[in-house]
Amino acid sequence: MTEEIKQGDDVLLYLDERRRYLVKVEDRSFHTHKGYVELRELIGRPYGVSVESNLKVSFIALKPTIYDYIAKLARRTQILYYKDIALIILRLGIGAGSRVVEGGTGSGALASALAFFVKPTGKVYSYEVRSDVLEVARKNLARVGLLDYVELKNKDLTEGIEEKEVDAVVLDLASPWDVVPHAYEALKGGGGLASFSPTINQVEKTVEALRREGFVDIEAVECLLRKLKVEVGATRPHTFMVGHTGYLVFARKSIKS
Amino acid sequence: MTEEIKQGDDVLLYLDERRRYLVKVEDRSFHTHKGYVELRELIGRPYGVSVESNLKVSFIALKPTIYDYIAKLARRTQILYYKDIALIILRLGIGAGSRVVEGGTGSGALASALAFFVKPTGKVYSYEVRSDVLEVARKNLARVGLLDYVELKNKDLTEGIEEKEVDAVVLDLASPWDVVPHAYEALKGGGGLASFSPTINQVEKTVEALRREGFVDIEAVECLLRKLKVEVGATRPHTFMVGHTGYLVFARKSIKS
Amino acid sequence: MTEEIKQGDDVLLYLDERRRYLVKVEDRSFHTHKGYVELRELIGRPYGVSVESNLKVSFIALKPTIYDYIAKLARRTQILYYKDIALIILRLGIGAGSRVVEGGTGSGALASALAFFVKPTGKVYSYEVRSDVLEVARKNLARVGLLDYVELKNKDLTEGIEEKEVDAVVLDLASPWDVVPHAYEALKGGGGLASFSPTINQVEKTVEALRREGFVDIEAVECLLRKLKVEVGATRPHTFMVGHTGYLVFARKSIKS
Amino acid sequence: MTEEIKQGDDVLLYLDERRRYLVKVEDRSFHTHKGYVELRELIGRPYGVSVESNLKVSFIALKPTIYDYIAKLARRTQILYYKDIALIILRLGIGAGSRVVEGGTGSGALASALAFFVKPTGKVYSYEVRSDVLEVARKNLARVGLLDYVELKNKDLTEGIEEKEVDAVVLDLASPWDVVPHAYEALKGGGGLASFSPTINQVEKTVEALRREGFVDIEAVECLLRKLKVEVGATRPHTFMVGHTGYLVFARKSIKS
Repeated sequence: MTEEIKQGDDVLLYLDERRRYLVKVEDRSFHTHKGYVELRELIGRPYGVSVESNLKVSFIALKPTIYDYIAKLARRTQILYYKDIALIILRLGIGAGSRVVEGGTGSGALASALAFFVKPTGKVYSYEVRSDVLEVARKNLARVGLLDYVELKNKDLTEGIEEKEVDAVVLDLASPWDVVPHAYEALKGGGGLASFSPTINQVEKTVEALRREGFVDIEAVECLLRKLKVEVGATRPHTFMVGHTGYLVFARKSIKS
Repeated sequence: MTEEIKQGDDVLLYLDERRRYLVKVEDRSFHTHKGYVELRELIGRPYGVSVESNLKVSFIALKPTIYDYIAKLARRTQILYYKDIALIILRLGIGAGSRVVEGGTGSGALASALAFFVKPTGKVYSYEVRSDVLEVARKNLARVGLLDYVELKNKDLTEGIEEKEVDAVVLDLASPWDVVPHAYEALKGGGGLASFSPTINQVEKTVEALRREGFVDIEAVECLLRKLKVEVGATRPHTFMVGHTGYLVFARKSIKS
Repeated sequence: MTEEIKQGDDVLLYLDERRRYLVKVEDRSFHTHKGYVELRELIGRPYGVSVESNLKVSFIALKPTIYDYIAKLARRTQILYYKDIALIILRLGIGAGSRVVEGGTGSGALASALAFFVKPTGKVYSYEVRSDVLEVARKNLARVGLLDYVELKNKDLTEGIEEKEVDAVVLDLASPWDVVPHAYEALKGGGGLASFSPTINQVEKTVEALRREGFVDIEAVECLLRKLKVEVGATRPHTFMVGHTGYLVFARKSIKS
Repeated sequence: MTEEIKQGDDVLLYLDERRRYLVKVEDRSFHTHKGYVELRELIGRPYGVSVESNLKVSFIALKPTIYDYIAKLARRTQILYYKDIALIILRLGIGAGSRVVEGGTGSGALASALAFFVKPTGKVYSYEVRSDVLEVARKNLARVGLLDYVELKNKDLTEGIEEKEVDAVVLDLASPWDVVPHAYEALKGGGGLASFSPTINQVEKTVEALRREGFVDIEAVECLLRKLKVEVGATRPHTFMVGHTGYLVFARKSIKS
């Protein structure tokens, strides 16, 4: 009943908040600043188990979640954070069976999250103009085990969307307003759109395009996540925080009469 | 292919951000400050269609999403917001097939969200001490069409959790620290816990209990959502905002050796 | 040595955070929802004393500070908050002896604050195009006892500034960018400018004008003030907060070579 | 009329937001990563003038304000920021002539700011238990030219306050609640108290002590300052921000009857 770690599994070796390593369990040792861990020793042990490095430092072997994968993938692009992805998922109601158009694919972090939530019966159609970028995303999605739920398309979203009657369109690209008319065509009636943009000027242009195109329930928000340093009797927010990743714009398609 | 509105469907009649009504399509008229809408006229029309009240005000008939249901249910309790629920879902990696223990059930808003994401193969076990509250939640979950994925339990979480090897435990109750040892027992190795509390003192006690019990990757955060008023050439955040709903504490179970 | 309340003094009758009344001590009774207070009874009593209404509710008679006056004056315009004024004062280093140009005068809240800090040897030159508005500001400044330190000018700041070699220019008007060249002319070398604007678009235009004109140390910020509800064992931020008043832009004049 | 830079003056050599150097004008060269500046060349030039390093990089020679001095002094202690000091000054109405008790002195940053605003006729009484710390503060205050307005006292605020009928008490120390009874004794009726603390637990204890002692108008707040990166057409908040310095508690003395 307890799930055991197997050869070839991905494992998150957790030491503390900053030192968390995503590794594949193979017949090798994994080196860190706190010594090396013999990965084969994990095989047959339950997830959550503690393993010591040769320097007697304990790491916890956790089963990676979609959160861990996003964190790892997003670290490279450093823009779209899990807080933003979480809002998109819930605000658009993306769940098992949803058909979602997304782009640009980038590292595949957002596509991974979408795929995780639409499985086992839904599909993500992810557009990316750069073929080299798309291949990196393909590898990332394969590693995360979610490639089956994503159709990667080496096409430009600003030139059109091939899918019809999709449940949602999620945009993380420089000129989302150019995609708005295509998104309208692709969405089913009442279907949701989300767009992530770092600058307020992009938000203005996107909202303007959405209003023109006949979207309703248009809302622009920003989300701030603040960590607390909890010490009994001396609790306080952390001194430094991420003050901005980007703004989110949400909207839904109304049918033109 | 286009999804049509049917008799008995739930429809979100959308006028603007504040005036959005969740109604069941029946042979009756629905009255608002902007006139009444004949609901039967919606039958056979596509979602996203516009319908006029007798006062010639247009409402858009949207298909309600889990976001809309949460918004409606949470309005009564006014504490746990969708931003917080979204973070819980993604941070814990709750998806199709997850088995999740939750409590207190309250209005069922959080249970609905969890059920939406664990379907079609997962299950939510929702604990609530007050039987009258539980019956209201049952009706709410039935209306949302998610009751099949939730097992409602008229029991006290602080006295124990009956399930074993669950993927996640989500707490929204006054003394989460009393549930922490039971959560440890119920969770599988590496399984995630999330706790929502309005006060900082509750956060301190919860984190203290988590550390004592052997949880790792403990993180306390707060999430602020700020809306923008977008007018081309005059864009600014809204004057008023919700400055606080509560804090979230996340943790994962490590196996004691 | 203890300061006593005199006939004609302004007194802040304090009940709680929301119920705080600025009244002049005269031979009359002051009516509130918690009964009436005989103001003459305050005469000869020390500031900070408690006085009972006829309904036995206690009010504390405080000596109003510049903060109280600003709060009262700003309540009418509801835009520039004391947090913003405080930043302006300190960021520009406005103190005893400073000569400051300000506009638009509006209710006089900002002018009052500036006057409070430049006294006894400095001066505020406050510009306002609307003469009726200016007269209201004159009354407000007189009541606050700071009119001697303010020269009210019924002129349009966008048409020019008459003063030279001033220490600072503070703008709270719709098109601050139109005033930037005049501010440059009026300021002494290294002198500071502050501009308050509700929208991000105004900030862009102001910063653009400042860069063009040769200002340096240009900085745009926003300030969020969040109140805490402190109950021992149940402390938390307030549910609602002011999420936006406006942005502040600061800059200093560099001499063109 | 134009103020000229003199031998011995403090000058702020400004390159950009991060590179701003507070230097005394002497017969020497000042070395930076962008080359060296011959300081004597500044003598007789107006403030705001541009001066080139030997590498042809332009620095602007600004007259330092109290803001610049605070920024420099606070950099060492890294806790109390200018936003917090600004709120204290305005909230307590500290102006020319105010008599203020303050402690601990620390680097003297807060004492400098208070001195700047109480001059020319007020006084700051600054308490510090560590004599070595006090001597550093003395040098800092002398350099800023504000030592005449500060009486430095090598005493422990928790053991008592020697002054009476003061206008305000400002606390930046580990256990402000121990000073609250002394502050009550020292303040005149209606006089204001401000206390800065990094942790929420300190806020609880301080507020508890203030309520017990008979203070009114008690308010706890936190202030967040967020910088904007203004590029025309691409404006956004900075990615990183200071998420926490500390909380501020304000209160006023009511006379016990």
